[in-house]
Amino acid sequence: MATSIKVGLAGFGNVGKGTYDVLQRNKDLIVKRSGTDISVKRVVARNTARVVPLVAEDVIVSSDWKDIVNDPDINVVVEVMGGIEPARSLILEAISKGKHVVTANKALLAEYGNEIFAAAEKAGVNVAFEAAVAGSIPIVKGLREGLAANDVKWIAGIINGTCNFILSTMRDTGRSFADVLAEAQQLGYAEADPTFDIEGIDTAHKIMLLAAIAFGVPVNMQKVHIEGISKLEAKDIKYAEELGFRIKLLGITKNTNYGVEVRVHPALVPNRRLLANVEGAMNAVVVKGDAAESSLYYGKGAGGEPTGSAVIADLIDIARTASVDVSERPKMPTVDSKHNANPWADFGDTVCSYYMRIPVEDKPGVLAEITRIIADNKISIESLIQKEAPQKVHQTEVIMMTHTTKEADVQKAIRTMQELSSVRGPIVLLRKEELH
Amino acid sequence: MATSIKVGLAGFGNVGKGTYDVLQRNKDLIVKRSGTDISVKRVVARNTARVVPLVAEDVIVSSDWKDIVNDPDINVVVEVMGGIEPARSLILEAISKGKHVVTANKALLAEYGNEIFAAAEKAGVNVAFEAAVAGSIPIVKGLREGLAANDVKWIAGIINGTCNFILSTMRDTGRSFADVLAEAQQLGYAEADPTFDIEGIDTAHKIMLLAAIAFGVPVNMQKVHIEGISKLEAKDIKYAEELGFRIKLLGITKNTNYGVEVRVHPALVPNRRLLANVEGAMNAVVVKGDAAESSLYYGKGAGGEPTGSAVIADLIDIARTASVDVSERPKMPTVDSKHNANPWADFGDTVCSYYMRIPVEDKPGVLAEITRIIADNKISIESLIQKEAPQKVHQTEVIMMTHTTKEADVQKAIRTMQELSSVRGPIVLLRKEELH
Repeated sequence: MATSIKVGLAGFGNVGKGTYDVLQRNKDLIVKRSGTDISVKRVVARNTARVVPLVAEDVIVSSDWKDIVNDPDINVVVEVMGGIEPARSLILEAISKGKHVVTANKALLAEYGNEIFAAAEKAGVNVAFEAAVAGSIPIVKGLREGLAANDVKWIAGIINGTCNFILSTMRDTGRSFADVLAEAQQLGYAEADPTFDIEGIDTAHKIMLLAAIAFGVPVNMQKVHIEGISKLEAKDIKYAEELGFRIKLLGITKNTNYGVEVRVHPALVPNRRLLANVEGAMNAVVVKGDAAESSLYYGKGAGGEPTGSAVIADLIDIARTASVDVSERPKMPTVDSKHNANPWADFGDTVCSYYMRIPVEDKPGVLAEITRIIADNKISIESLIQKEAPQKVHQTEVIMMTHTTKEADVQKAIRTMQELSSVRGPIVLLRKEELH
Repeated sequence: MATSIKVGLAGFGNVGKGTYDVLQRNKDLIVKRSGTDISVKRVVARNTARVVPLVAEDVIVSSDWKDIVNDPDINVVVEVMGGIEPARSLILEAISKGKHVVTANKALLAEYGNEIFAAAEKAGVNVAFEAAVAGSIPIVKGLREGLAANDVKWIAGIINGTCNFILSTMRDTGRSFADVLAEAQQLGYAEADPTFDIEGIDTAHKIMLLAAIAFGVPVNMQKVHIEGISKLEAKDIKYAEELGFRIKLLGITKNTNYGVEVRVHPALVPNRRLLANVEGAMNAVVVKGDAAESSLYYGKGAGGEPTGSAVIADLIDIARTASVDVSERPKMPTVDSKHNANPWADFGDTVCSYYMRIPVEDKPGVLAEITRIIADNKISIESLIQKEAPQKVHQTEVIMMTHTTKEADVQKAIRTMQELSSVRGPIVLLRKEELH
């Protein structure tokens, strides 16, 4: 593909416009670096009248995505519409016509990636998706190429800016989740319906894609354990801080002896770790490889031009390497992969250390009851503090940190403790990630 | 190059052994990811008897580097000997025989890169050097490919682990430079002759290479302003801390209106910045692009396997993309580049904000004299504190932070102040980098 790349751009929201603007502004640089002229021939958007004044005169703007697929001049389709349909149909049709695809659509790839990657491999085209994970950060390339020599042990990432903004603000101000969410919505950091972000689903899509790349597993959202941040209380953030930790919503995937773990949940991270110091809406991903050891990649996880930067990096890659034999390109696993009959770990087998906050009656013997249950479940206590519960008479809170132990054992201990008459409310359970 | 890669490995120190070990251990993964079998056919090392028991039986070990160049089977030479000769001759001869080269040799490339890159381009082979900058961190690939859409504004990096270990330890313990250097030497973090590291030369080599990639300038070590850390005093680290900064040895390159700056010096970094929190012997590089905005890359900057990880990433890249037309591969600038007649900024034109520590006589009117000189040189003061100098009678120290101003003006002001009879010793000048 030494001649030229003619892009069909599907979607002209924030990311579509950012991609277009950067392509125009840095045209000379990009030609120099890619050895190829990359230009947008068509834009498809719902509201064409809004788009026309924002693009050059020779760009054809229309509202039917089939216009892109049916244009034989277009050799790469950039899909930045988001959502499942019509993005899925567009991508599959583009592939079937031999067009390469660049997409920022994490939800689509995490749900339908196996079908899409298999179709692309059959057709001998690329489906590139640097922009789908952590915006501007070249983590897909980093994993596939920069760290290609490594047997990756685990990946942990702050990959949802909305959640990290909320958690950073809760910590800085001591305010409640609901209060800070409302502010985030006002500032445009959170959407009117914030479910995808705050319930961890967006993080789950992204960590699923990173797991697929790192461990060669097909995508399977059923296997991801997902907890969001909506139930997190300001006081746990404060207690964690006192213990030397910050609470972050992490996407985590590990290649363990009992299978591949993929999980999303708030986690206590030691405050000396660089990841704990990622503040506001920023994203960061830590990768542990056997040779490179720990490395971290940090940057803007969203925004028109930062995400556009990743989209264009994929376009340049396609320009540079489309002549490479398909068999030598980095591959995505598909459901047909032979190694992957059942690569998944059971969530109950997860080994972690834990933070528990147990609201209890303030009377002699309670601590003995609790520590007995903990011991019965083979859990070893690292530290234990009693906190006063100023609002409630005759009640205290026990904050317990455990050594590493099995998730299933902890769940069982909690169920048993929860039945004690001296336990006066739901036990809060958080996981600790040392990241070493 | 779909068939196979036969490596000639020149050097079997820490990095050579790390590369070899990782290639062996992760052979299956690497074949899967590269689509190519990568194996070491020959090792060249001074002490062959030491190497033979460390490699497989079918690896040919000898002590003459020409054995690698003259073996027609070998299609990639990995140079991890270090030093200028014979590395330079080996690389040039390998290129002339049509072999690709992978090297970790920053000193060689920063000094002789123009000659080497020009020869490689002429011969149609790659000279890959991910391992030469920041060890395991895929920053060369990140800049060239991941951020290829960006007009890069500046790069700032902690890219010498020895210096960062010394500075982190000085800050943690309040101990002197000499004292901590001795400890670093004992721990193996610093060499017996630490000049290259502590005087900033190693950092300068690496930032020069990053400048060449980002801005398309030929390498030219004459244009780098270099200050190391050997004169840094514990008290400046303490004062900086009180003001909210940490002192790091940074390699900095900026593309400004007055030319490309490349400089190495200790710098005050605001302690909320992620870069300020990079501790111990770790490395990190921040890149500011017009589209991606700020991104940061962090990891191990040295060590056998971490550096080997980068060497092998380059090998895999060569395996995957050697079929790509040379004109489409990322290029290194050479002295022949047309755009680069004189791309360099004068150091005096550097715009920065500054930290000064001025030892002065404790008497009325001294501050008036100093601030008058500052004002005469069009420098605007951001803050000013007087510190007692407990060891010295009738003497205090003025700590001054300036707003952004021109280096030449600051230098002039310092020369003038230094002549005052009330200034009782050399003025300490440090630069502040906000990194935004």
